[in-house]
Amino acid sequence: MSGAYVHGYDARANERLEDQAATLVDLLHHDTAYPAGSSVLEAGCGVGAQTVTLAQHSPEARITSIDISESSLAEARSLVERAGVTNVEFRQADVFELPFEPETFDHVFVCFLLEHLSWPVTALERLRDLLRPGGTITVIEGDHGSAYFHPDSEAAHDAIRCQVELQAAAGGDANIGRRVYPLMTEAGLEGVQVSARMVYVDATRPELVDGFTRKTFTAMIEGTREDALAAALIAPARFDEGVAALHRAAEADGVFCYTFFKGVGARGAGAGAVST
Amino acid sequence: MSGAYVHGYDARANERLEDQAATLVDLLHHDTAYPAGSSVLEAGCGVGAQTVTLAQHSPEARITSIDISESSLAEARSLVERAGVTNVEFRQADVFELPFEPETFDHVFVCFLLEHLSWPVTALERLRDLLRPGGTITVIEGDHGSAYFHPDSEAAHDAIRCQVELQAAAGGDANIGRRVYPLMTEAGLEGVQVSARMVYVDATRPELVDGFTRKTFTAMIEGTREDALAAALIAPARFDEGVAALHRAAEADGVFCYTFFKGVGARGAGAGAVST
Repeated sequence: MSGAYVHGYDARANERLEDQAATLVDLLHHDTAYPAGSSVLEAGCGVGAQTVTLAQHSPEARITSIDISESSLAEARSLVERAGVTNVEFRQADVFELPFEPETFDHVFVCFLLEHLSWPVTALERLRDLLRPGGTITVIEGDHGSAYFHPDSEAAHDAIRCQVELQAAAGGDANIGRRVYPLMTEAGLEGVQVSARMVYVDATRPELVDGFTRKTFTAMIEGTREDALAAALIAPARFDEGVAALHRAAEADGVFCYTFFKGVGARGAGAGAVST
Repeated sequence: MSGAYVHGYDARANERLEDQAATLVDLLHHDTAYPAGSSVLEAGCGVGAQTVTLAQHSPEARITSIDISESSLAEARSLVERAGVTNVEFRQADVFELPFEPETFDHVFVCFLLEHLSWPVTALERLRDLLRPGGTITVIEGDHGSAYFHPDSEAAHDAIRCQVELQAAAGGDANIGRRVYPLMTEAGLEGVQVSARMVYVDATRPELVDGFTRKTFTAMIEGTREDALAAALIAPARFDEGVAALHRAAEADGVFCYTFFKGVGARGAGAGAVST
């Protein structure tokens, strides 16, 4: 992963990711719980936005959370301590140079990581090789192409496109959610099952209007303003018009839609070959 | 409703709508059942694609299904007879000139109708006035802006846009699904609750690959070819490229997503004023 734009690396973005985690916990995590005694690798934990939930849902599993960024890990450690969670170990590591022996883990959990990687299939293959036969990989990713809203606004779509282009320039794919099934299958995982987790927001769901439409999605797009203008992807007035339109969709008659994709696949019981 | 383009009025389109109904029955209808003895108006039944399911889920309700088109009603009658359904009466009527007294029905059911209307709020107001106080209106609509797929294709989006533009030129809105909440609220319905019903299709769901991606959505877009070219909305080669890309999304590593919106709202118990 290289390039100037990576979200999640400044204080405002961290607050946003924590808000997002609080609102979306049930939608994304309710069906992930690992058995007592199992060893779980969380790859790309970032600032720990998902780590606390992951650990709390599997209190008797041993979780190892890795990230490439030491500063993110420091945030994550602090968050986990504040939550009183004790079953997580943190370690600095690159997902493409994993410091673990093959067949070290029972399960792997990956959330909002593949979207940043130039070689997501390679990453999944490396992670697969760390699994004991029959172990699972769970992948959760969003998809910016799944964002639509009322009132509709071409300016808002243009502003969103800036983040898609910035992320692509950094080697990632902000529209990766729809690709979870083919990516996991291509990585040789077996029995892959993907489910779409759609967030539908109207005025009857005020916690999502505030926690998701405003503080997660719109805040994320707003957060790309400086980079988008520096890269000359859009005129400042057009960007601001787009952000205003996203805020408009959070008003009483507004509607906002976004979808996350969650996939689970297994390392085959007969898997012998280890890719490198 | 006026204009040249209205889908559902030729034999191929009718087959498509029946396929769609078969595949999507559970997703759209599982939570709609009316009590014994209740009177239900189905407004805009078309060729009866939803009528059989509606009647079978509420076998002891009395259903009155109306449509503006006599030829569609003939199809619907035939479909209902073949299914052995006996609790449906058909009647030719315009939703804007309804031949019923106020407070005639306990419930109203509207599926894939508002997308074709220039004044959807007025239609809902007229239908609301036919309800006894406390009665409900159920609205189901799709949203073409919710369609995305892997592999992604600008040509496919261009082909889809043709139908959106044709439907807009005829006074409708193919992206109306996201507007179900504001439309129902604006029509004075109370306690409106909307849920998104997303269809996620990958190779693990072959009945949806065939029944939805190919035979419902792609067939519908293909069906607009003649009108789209006649209206000079797109070059023939570009349209065909777009349709080919939609078929590509139905292959083994393809993914297709689409979302329907279902809203339920009530006529207030204290509703006295009847709008006209």
